[in-house]
Amino acid sequence: MAKRVTKSGSKKTHAANARRTKPVSKKVARKAGSAPSGPTPKGGKMVYYFGKTRTEGGPSLKMLLGGKGANLADMTSIGLPVPPGFTITTDTCAKYYDAGKRLPTGLMNEVHKNIALLEKELGKVFGSVDNPLLVSVRSGAAVSMPGMMDTILNLGLTDAAVEGLAKATKNERFAFDAYRRLINMFGDVVMGVDHEHFEHAFDEIKRKHRAEADTDVPAEGLRELCQAYKDVYRKYVGDEFPQNPFKQLELAIEAVFKSWNADRAISYRRLAGISGLNGTAVNVQSMVYGNMGEDSGTGVAFTRNPSTGDNTFYGEFLINAQGEDVVAGIRTPKPVDEMPAWNKRVHQQLLKIKQTLEKHYKEMQDIEFTIERGTLFMLQTRTGKRTGAAAVKIACDMVKEKLIDEKTALLRIPAGDLTQLLLPSFDPTKKSIAKVLAKGLPASPGAAVGKPAFTAVEAVRRKQAGESVILVRKETSPEDVEGMHSAAGILTSTGGMTSHAAVVARGWGKCCVAGAGDIHINAEKGEFTVGGKSYGREDVISIDGSTGEVISGAVPRVEPTLSGDFAKIMKWADKYRTIGVRTNADTPADAKRGRDFGAEGIGLTRTEHMFFEGDRIKAMREMILAEVIETRERALAKLLPYQRDDFIGIFRAMDGLPVTIRLIDPPLHEFLPHEPEAQKEMAQSIGVPLEKVKQRVAQLHEMNPMLGHRGCRLCVTYPEILVMQVRAIVEAAIECVRENVKALPEIMIPLVGTKRELSLLREQVEKTIAKVKADEDFTARLDIKIGTMIEIPRAALTADEIAMHADFFSFGTNDLTQLTYGFSRDDINSFLPDYLNRDILEKDPFQSLDQSGVGQLVQMGIEKGRKAAKGLKIGICGEHGGDPASVHFCHKVGMDYVSCSPFRVPIARLAAAQAAIMGGK
Amino acid sequence: MAKRVTKSGSKKTHAANARRTKPVSKKVARKAGSAPSGPTPKGGKMVYYFGKTRTEGGPSLKMLLGGKGANLADMTSIGLPVPPGFTITTDTCAKYYDAGKRLPTGLMNEVHKNIALLEKELGKVFGSVDNPLLVSVRSGAAVSMPGMMDTILNLGLTDAAVEGLAKATKNERFAFDAYRRLINMFGDVVMGVDHEHFEHAFDEIKRKHRAEADTDVPAEGLRELCQAYKDVYRKYVGDEFPQNPFKQLELAIEAVFKSWNADRAISYRRLAGISGLNGTAVNVQSMVYGNMGEDSGTGVAFTRNPSTGDNTFYGEFLINAQGEDVVAGIRTPKPVDEMPAWNKRVHQQLLKIKQTLEKHYKEMQDIEFTIERGTLFMLQTRTGKRTGAAAVKIACDMVKEKLIDEKTALLRIPAGDLTQLLLPSFDPTKKSIAKVLAKGLPASPGAAVGKPAFTAVEAVRRKQAGESVILVRKETSPEDVEGMHSAAGILTSTGGMTSHAAVVARGWGKCCVAGAGDIHINAEKGEFTVGGKSYGREDVISIDGSTGEVISGAVPRVEPTLSGDFAKIMKWADKYRTIGVRTNADTPADAKRGRDFGAEGIGLTRTEHMFFEGDRIKAMREMILAEVIETRERALAKLLPYQRDDFIGIFRAMDGLPVTIRLIDPPLHEFLPHEPEAQKEMAQSIGVPLEKVKQRVAQLHEMNPMLGHRGCRLCVTYPEILVMQVRAIVEAAIECVRENVKALPEIMIPLVGTKRELSLLREQVEKTIAKVKADEDFTARLDIKIGTMIEIPRAALTADEIAMHADFFSFGTNDLTQLTYGFSRDDINSFLPDYLNRDILEKDPFQSLDQSGVGQLVQMGIEKGRKAAKGLKIGICGEHGGDPASVHFCHKVGMDYVSCSPFRVPIARLAAAQAAIMGGK
Repeated sequence: MAKRVTKSGSKKTHAANARRTKPVSKKVARKAGSAPSGPTPKGGKMVYYFGKTRTEGGPSLKMLLGGKGANLADMTSIGLPVPPGFTITTDTCAKYYDAGKRLPTGLMNEVHKNIALLEKELGKVFGSVDNPLLVSVRSGAAVSMPGMMDTILNLGLTDAAVEGLAKATKNERFAFDAYRRLINMFGDVVMGVDHEHFEHAFDEIKRKHRAEADTDVPAEGLRELCQAYKDVYRKYVGDEFPQNPFKQLELAIEAVFKSWNADRAISYRRLAGISGLNGTAVNVQSMVYGNMGEDSGTGVAFTRNPSTGDNTFYGEFLINAQGEDVVAGIRTPKPVDEMPAWNKRVHQQLLKIKQTLEKHYKEMQDIEFTIERGTLFMLQTRTGKRTGAAAVKIACDMVKEKLIDEKTALLRIPAGDLTQLLLPSFDPTKKSIAKVLAKGLPASPGAAVGKPAFTAVEAVRRKQAGESVILVRKETSPEDVEGMHSAAGILTSTGGMTSHAAVVARGWGKCCVAGAGDIHINAEKGEFTVGGKSYGREDVISIDGSTGEVISGAVPRVEPTLSGDFAKIMKWADKYRTIGVRTNADTPADAKRGRDFGAEGIGLTRTEHMFFEGDRIKAMREMILAEVIETRERALAKLLPYQRDDFIGIFRAMDGLPVTIRLIDPPLHEFLPHEPEAQKEMAQSIGVPLEKVKQRVAQLHEMNPMLGHRGCRLCVTYPEILVMQVRAIVEAAIECVRENVKALPEIMIPLVGTKRELSLLREQVEKTIAKVKADEDFTARLDIKIGTMIEIPRAALTADEIAMHADFFSFGTNDLTQLTYGFSRDDINSFLPDYLNRDILEKDPFQSLDQSGVGQLVQMGIEKGRKAAKGLKIGICGEHGGDPASVHFCHKVGMDYVSCSPFRVPIARLAAAQAAIMGGK
Repeated sequence: MAKRVTKSGSKKTHAANARRTKPVSKKVARKAGSAPSGPTPKGGKMVYYFGKTRTEGGPSLKMLLGGKGANLADMTSIGLPVPPGFTITTDTCAKYYDAGKRLPTGLMNEVHKNIALLEKELGKVFGSVDNPLLVSVRSGAAVSMPGMMDTILNLGLTDAAVEGLAKATKNERFAFDAYRRLINMFGDVVMGVDHEHFEHAFDEIKRKHRAEADTDVPAEGLRELCQAYKDVYRKYVGDEFPQNPFKQLELAIEAVFKSWNADRAISYRRLAGISGLNGTAVNVQSMVYGNMGEDSGTGVAFTRNPSTGDNTFYGEFLINAQGEDVVAGIRTPKPVDEMPAWNKRVHQQLLKIKQTLEKHYKEMQDIEFTIERGTLFMLQTRTGKRTGAAAVKIACDMVKEKLIDEKTALLRIPAGDLTQLLLPSFDPTKKSIAKVLAKGLPASPGAAVGKPAFTAVEAVRRKQAGESVILVRKETSPEDVEGMHSAAGILTSTGGMTSHAAVVARGWGKCCVAGAGDIHINAEKGEFTVGGKSYGREDVISIDGSTGEVISGAVPRVEPTLSGDFAKIMKWADKYRTIGVRTNADTPADAKRGRDFGAEGIGLTRTEHMFFEGDRIKAMREMILAEVIETRERALAKLLPYQRDDFIGIFRAMDGLPVTIRLIDPPLHEFLPHEPEAQKEMAQSIGVPLEKVKQRVAQLHEMNPMLGHRGCRLCVTYPEILVMQVRAIVEAAIECVRENVKALPEIMIPLVGTKRELSLLREQVEKTIAKVKADEDFTARLDIKIGTMIEIPRAALTADEIAMHADFFSFGTNDLTQLTYGFSRDDINSFLPDYLNRDILEKDPFQSLDQSGVGQLVQMGIEKGRKAAKGLKIGICGEHGGDPASVHFCHKVGMDYVSCSPFRVPIARLAAAQAAIMGGK
């Protein structure tokens, strides 16, 4: 057990950082990153003081002082009890790198002056043998990053000062515990000494003093330990542990600067989409201690519930503990509601601070505090991360409370986070109690099903191989972020609601159950044990992030029910947005779902999916095998009624709204079986020789199907397919008119690269429409538009020519991205991870539209298209249509609408509103 | 036999047209098509007269009067004996289509006035029963097209006028022969009556008169025949053959207009790359007859030899024959050299006309003439088609003769036609006399090897299937052009040097042997017989277009030797061109060949081809199978010496000239065997389990290899490959310096789509160069450039960013075309023929750069690249680098050089000179 605690201790530093530097929302991050605000500093001022004496910074200097530095200054200004200190600017970090990793001249001079100010304010002296000033050194960029920046605590302790501290606090054990922590952290973080070496020394001392836990070691043992740690330090650093506190400070500042470009920091910035920052600031702050006895303590809290959004003070605290103990998940903290029993005054003070903070920031805050011998200190406040549901509730509540207006409320909700509200949850009627293996904390809502993966690397690998995995870990650390990202859900056996796993998962809207202590994990064996039974890599489990349940097997999921606040947000979004939102839907059910989610039409109906069901595929295959046009037409005639009925269903579901129908797109070989067994079956079922099936499969084989005989190219060679599809559409539309349903089909011709493809096929479509109307003896007007997808680079380049023959354009940004990059989506996984790791790509361009490359073509296509055909209707139907950043882009370039999968429609509506509010058109 | 003659007769009209409207060079065509010159006509004048009375047109009105009309006016002006007539303008044709295919108001009024002028000048009357005026009606656009436009002869004959003609010529047989020809042609061409119906009527008359050939039928029989023809006409047209000559004329004019948009005409314009024309003019000209007896005749001639370019009058004539008899290949004509024996005066007159024409046009002319009862008439003159060799010789000779200057000489040679001079010919030492099956006329030079195809359709199909075919036909007609285009060579059993096959083949620079009469073709059986032996679709034959030999089996070919005139043209080209020409070469031999052809460096060395030979592929495969980097590096180390030696060889061949070396490009699976047998062999040879080979093959399989893990993406994941290749290049360069050879490597990183790919790999290349120099203890400067291929659309779109890290750009227009169109070159054949047929594409974009789509990206890439990096060196290394039109484009957009296969280097040099002379920069 001692080993376990010690080992956990080894993670403390990271975990502590993780807690202190949780990510803010991407939107905020981007805003901060791209739009530095506030005045530039006068001259070369590199250090800003905050304290009762004077406070030089403030929230407007966030780019310069980092989020944490600006906040500390701000909190101090509004009268909160913040331990005084000073901030070294982010510009100084940039200067450090510009100078080839050297601290800029003059910096340490300014630091000396500020330390003197601190000494004066606190009546302590840096390195003093009587009453030494101790400080923490922390990083803090304009956008915070969990667990990426190294932190040093207790800095200022030396062999001399530790005695002073013991004297001043009258607690020798405390003083030497603080000293050994400094030597350990400083050695590890600043000088790169392997933490293991310190651990070994500690183990020895513990053995010697027969101590089981760290806390069992007496003061004397800790004094010995400090000596042992200094020996370790000398051995591995090759130098003595610095006895000059200013030397310590200088090295620590440099370590913070260096950590800005540590691999983990770079990786996090990439994953979170953060760019455009100067560097990190360094915050040097006087230390306060929550571990000075039973009248001391430490805690973290949110001004509202970050999971539900309820307007209640929500947090946890630990008595006689350092801040990192709360987040490391070693000791289980108490909820703040239980604080009055321990110290009512402090609790009242905190509730008051909650009011002050929300009135000041007009935002839900995430705070960190310490009680040193009964006195409350505020260590940090920041905008609190929250779930999508909480974001919606808090935004609505704050409008009701007149803290913010509707527009601000809309901007407060990261559009992508709505996914969490829209995601299905487990069907409670299908959740067998018998199968609940364990219950942990409901750390991040959602419902995930998958097979356990026991390391981050394993999770990444298996996800790439197409598996849905649950990352199962005792606890998580910043090293695990890639694996957490890859997992469908995260399950930990230790840690609380504010543990690393919980915080990161909530940030991403990923399902997480934390602290399920009944679960015993054996990562090496690749299994976990609970209730005497073992579960391995092949056992499917379900985890419920809203209840904390861990369930054996795959639990079926149900659709979410959307709250009144959600509806309100959507109403506001529709009020402010200027761009339309449609849905992609291939079936009447999808169409209905999209409409329920607020879609104003269908932007993409893929007709080929309709060919796969039941008898249809047989007719489809007959069509493909046909050697003469008559046989082909006969087979197509069999497909016609199916297609017509599908369209009737969709038109009914979309009564009065436009429905964009894309003609057949995939190459014909996709409809033929490739396995010998299936080919045999097909030959029998259609009644042709097996040889013929094989021949046709071989004949249709393509080296690069993506660039082959597909899209409109099929209709050029086989116009009869187009004729059948258009006939089905028109017959369906006429049928709808007859039953008083308003069908508004928009026939979309895919993969056009030249004007002539479109003009030729458009002519055929028009002829077919006329023919069907004549056949049906239908003389009323049918409102049918004919347009094309812009998904081939050449189509964008020659959009002016193509627009002459189109009633509308719809950007197919999936294929456009494939062709603009020369990336096959089917094959990209062989190098995409390397590309992301090495920063060649900032994001997967299939997730978020590449605005600088693909976006140029989109913009060109719109400009040329509209120049040639004024008022041309333009939309997007690639998967980017549901990505908030891409929706912003679509708004900016003047599209008429975006279209996305039904579940993403609300996200698109909100993102569209945010784009409209934030600017431009 | 009678049947055969009659059948041939049925082709006469087409054949005659083919002869009269041979294509001019594409260059000339394009020039004429795109730059209408000369004044616009005053008012709505639709008809222009030419004759002794007055001549209203001239060469400056070519766009308006068509080539033929302008020429007739021009010839008349310079005093040549041209039968008078008038021309209806091309604008009138456009008006005809604009009006929905109706003759414009006022046109027939103008026609009446001009007929009246003709009647006055010739003393004949239209439709007269005494001395009727007869006319021909012919098409003639600004650019001529072989066999595409329908022609009517003897127009003006009616039941009454034919008696008048018989009277006036005192030759009843002649008059009725003319009349039956008119009814037949008019019925066929104007009214669409199947020619067969007339044939049947003729057969009956011949049976009745026991005539074997048409010419055996007496006057009386022809009189009966005219009646029978009129019956056929009435039966199938549903109306009487028009007895009003003006009605005949009106219908004929309309037929010419209609033929402008006949499928064949459209198809030819596409194949020849002709666009931008208004329509066709109509030439109405008084008839002269070469078949009025033994003192009459007809012929065609060139003012110089169109095959060799020799400055000798060159042509053929037939006594007592109509013009079409010469070109139809039914009777074998006599060379003009034999004319003095028949009519010395006319021969002298023709020689004088040759001088007049060349002095006037300063170009080799192709003329058509008729002698009517001893009087010479010039029917037509035009720029003569010639072989590449003739073009070179004529251009050089005319400079010597001071007819033209160097620049004009250069513009006179279609750059693409140089292929003919550069193409290999049969190795005379390998040509076994025993195997020569037959000897025909050397109709168009070249040496073709292939299997016989007996119809045009078959030739097209088999070519598409990848076969090399020789089109073997009795004779060819305009219906065959697609098949002729597809064939490697053309062999006919009838017809002369000016037959359709010969003319068209020479126009394209395609090898043709015509009139090999010993060959008996049975197209239905799919074979030909010669010397009692049969040759079918599977028998390879060789045809020699320079000797006329038809040889059994495949004769090996040898490199051409280039004449002094060729060298002179190249010298002039280098004098005027401003853009560099490099060659693509992967081996020292190719490099040397390219340099011999005048290449100024290598624009593309593909390194992967080097991995396939002998032991190399084994090491390559070991590398691919390696699981850890050490094994991979060991395998790569084996490849290093091979690569280095290859590079040394290439550097030596290119001493002092730049050599662009592209790093590995294809996906790794291309180097692994896919057949089970080969995999087994490989597993044994490398010594790994078969399973592992299979696994790796499966693992590397890609859906779309073209868009997969290749190009620079390989070097991102496997930097050790880059290190090995760069090491080989640098070691080779150092070795060269040591042996006093100047190596100028340019390392090219392929498939870059983002700046970061290039910056990352560039850094690795630079590190490796430094490392090798250090390892080799080499301190002198090495001139090594590092650049990239622009072949991904995104690279062109973001060329400004990419240029920051590049010393040069080389446009890889093959891949750029694939991605811009979304076409896979490997798969395009499933729809390309349809796309060309339906005019969706004007040309195969892999042959000639698509300037409006792909070209936009190229231009953008150059502009952005040069804006970011002034003076950036830019070239092209796709196959377009050897296509004349594409070279013009590269010149226009400001590239520094083009690069193409060694054999195309001279073409590129000439095209570059033409681009510089013709304009712009």
